[in-house]
Amino acid sequence: MTVRIPVQRLRSFATEALQCAGLTEQDAAAGAEVVVYADVHGFTTHGSNALAGIYVPRLRDGRINPGPQLRTVSDTASGAVLDGDRGLGLVSTVRATDLAIGKARQTGIALVAVRNSSHFGSAGYYAHRATEAGLIAIAMTNCGAQGVAPGLGGTTRMLGTNPLAAGAPAPGGAPFVLDMSATTVATGKIRAAQREGREVPVGWLTGLDGMPVTDPNAYFDGKADVTWLGGSAATGGAKGYGLAILVDLLCGPLAGASWGPTPDLLENGEERPDTDIGHVVIAIDPAAFGAGSTFGAGARQLLDTLSADLPVDPARPVTYPGAPEARTAAASLADGVALPDHVARQLLSMAADLEIKAPTELAAVAE
Amino acid sequence: MTVRIPVQRLRSFATEALQCAGLTEQDAAAGAEVVVYADVHGFTTHGSNALAGIYVPRLRDGRINPGPQLRTVSDTASGAVLDGDRGLGLVSTVRATDLAIGKARQTGIALVAVRNSSHFGSAGYYAHRATEAGLIAIAMTNCGAQGVAPGLGGTTRMLGTNPLAAGAPAPGGAPFVLDMSATTVATGKIRAAQREGREVPVGWLTGLDGMPVTDPNAYFDGKADVTWLGGSAATGGAKGYGLAILVDLLCGPLAGASWGPTPDLLENGEERPDTDIGHVVIAIDPAAFGAGSTFGAGARQLLDTLSADLPVDPARPVTYPGAPEARTAAASLADGVALPDHVARQLLSMAADLEIKAPTELAAVAE
Repeated sequence: MTVRIPVQRLRSFATEALQCAGLTEQDAAAGAEVVVYADVHGFTTHGSNALAGIYVPRLRDGRINPGPQLRTVSDTASGAVLDGDRGLGLVSTVRATDLAIGKARQTGIALVAVRNSSHFGSAGYYAHRATEAGLIAIAMTNCGAQGVAPGLGGTTRMLGTNPLAAGAPAPGGAPFVLDMSATTVATGKIRAAQREGREVPVGWLTGLDGMPVTDPNAYFDGKADVTWLGGSAATGGAKGYGLAILVDLLCGPLAGASWGPTPDLLENGEERPDTDIGHVVIAIDPAAFGAGSTFGAGARQLLDTLSADLPVDPARPVTYPGAPEARTAAASLADGVALPDHVARQLLSMAADLEIKAPTELAAVAE
Repeated sequence: MTVRIPVQRLRSFATEALQCAGLTEQDAAAGAEVVVYADVHGFTTHGSNALAGIYVPRLRDGRINPGPQLRTVSDTASGAVLDGDRGLGLVSTVRATDLAIGKARQTGIALVAVRNSSHFGSAGYYAHRATEAGLIAIAMTNCGAQGVAPGLGGTTRMLGTNPLAAGAPAPGGAPFVLDMSATTVATGKIRAAQREGREVPVGWLTGLDGMPVTDPNAYFDGKADVTWLGGSAATGGAKGYGLAILVDLLCGPLAGASWGPTPDLLENGEERPDTDIGHVVIAIDPAAFGAGSTFGAGARQLLDTLSADLPVDPARPVTYPGAPEARTAAASLADGVALPDHVARQLLSMAADLEIKAPTELAAVAE
């Protein structure tokens, strides 16, 4: 069902693929780092799967600009807006994160936005990157003008899943890294259920009559919509919906990128562009708030105390966002990154297209 | 069921009550503004109900310091930590919000934290206050060392409901104001159901066996816990839980206040202090990001486009967080603030205790 490949080999391969698709060596290395982070931490839909399915094909057909010139649109003590020049979101958001970290170290907190960008991969990567520098961070992206889900109680798909990640350093154990969409699940999980012929749990999808739907095909046929975090209005669905709007306001009108609910585009029917996506990274330096020596220890104690609680189900210990992913990462480093067979096949096909050599570990699956 | 009282009369009465409880005229006016905002916008549990049930009694018994000396603990270009000197959270957070707005106008974004504080009322007030100044804001509070809900899948109540609000200006209509707890509902809504003898909807409470519970008494008897936004792990409960941790990390270890999962306090059993609460306000100035003239128009279009969508249920038009509350506020201004009978009785009782005159409108209910 999966193949395992050493982390370093996957990183080299991803870097080579991005270079072959036109990126500079430096940009390719940055992008590969984000791709490999996702695979290493178990975010299967956002790693090699996206490399082979989104990044490389779109870099090659020109929908993503392989040689963008990042431009600073605005720059203040604690803020900046970058124009991504239609480049790969992974690369521009690494730059945005590092810029936000640098500014936050000077002033306490900083926000860097990116406009005119594309898919930025695993939101958690940018939050995690900041924790490694000792900072707290929040990273988010909208989905440009794409419509994935209607507003709460609406019928027209107007908003993206609008992922949001948050991270905080907690030395002595896994950092806190929350990586969430504003919907109950990211659409990749619905696609995975469809591919595997599984029903989805009650609560993920709601039919056009407002009733629960468990057939993943209904989502792709337009007969059911993905729910907002919280589900119906009675159980807090307005909160997930509200978080999606917040992300779209920051990544759209603030960043100067496109956003989902755009009347002109809605009138054009189904085809809505996924270009001009916006991203926002907010970094906070505990040291600037006088908590340089105490924040990490406090965070560690908070997270450890939660984890030490007696669980309802003895088989499912209490944990926190970031901890299971850190365990997956440790296993990936020790035993190699687990890639599902269908992803391994995608990578083999991509390697053939690019005329580069695929890691030998992948070849096993195809036979 | 409710009495109606003119907004200005309620504001004067709340100000007088807070002054009688020991606040300076200026602090009383600031606190009353937050109380009245909640009542005017329909957040019944966080307005006069909290004034009579929490603020005035605790100011009088000394658990909240009526004459605090706010102290600046740290101060950078875009950040500050204030020590609230055990004062009323409403007053210190108004100061924190204005300080954050001022700094954000200089640098783009600012974060002001408050430690050693108390209940801060309606989180939405601070976000709304920033929108009136043309800024975007996020406001949050933890619940000090109080334990309201266990970690996801845990059994010991360790975390607060950890409210989070976000606001954005959108001239020409109601601003976006999201005011949410990280749990499916705030506990005040469970108490309201208990008082009215109603069951709560499936999804609000989960029993110690992990099954849904609809009897509100089970929460107060410790036989059921409030769920995290998203519900079970299968439907995104780790996201609400993660947001609660994020709020506790910022309002606890970053602000230098207490936080929920604290081993020493857990060992003391049931009694856990609700003093030394922390708050955080983050303000963002669109003008500093070059979006001074475009952000508001973009936000307006985004929100209006969502609202114009065809609803699933024709009787329930699509809306967005902030819009229904703005309609309630307009009705409050036109017809007077609606206060439930039990709140009116609380205010009458409080007036008697303070030996001040209650507004005549309230007297009607007692007869």
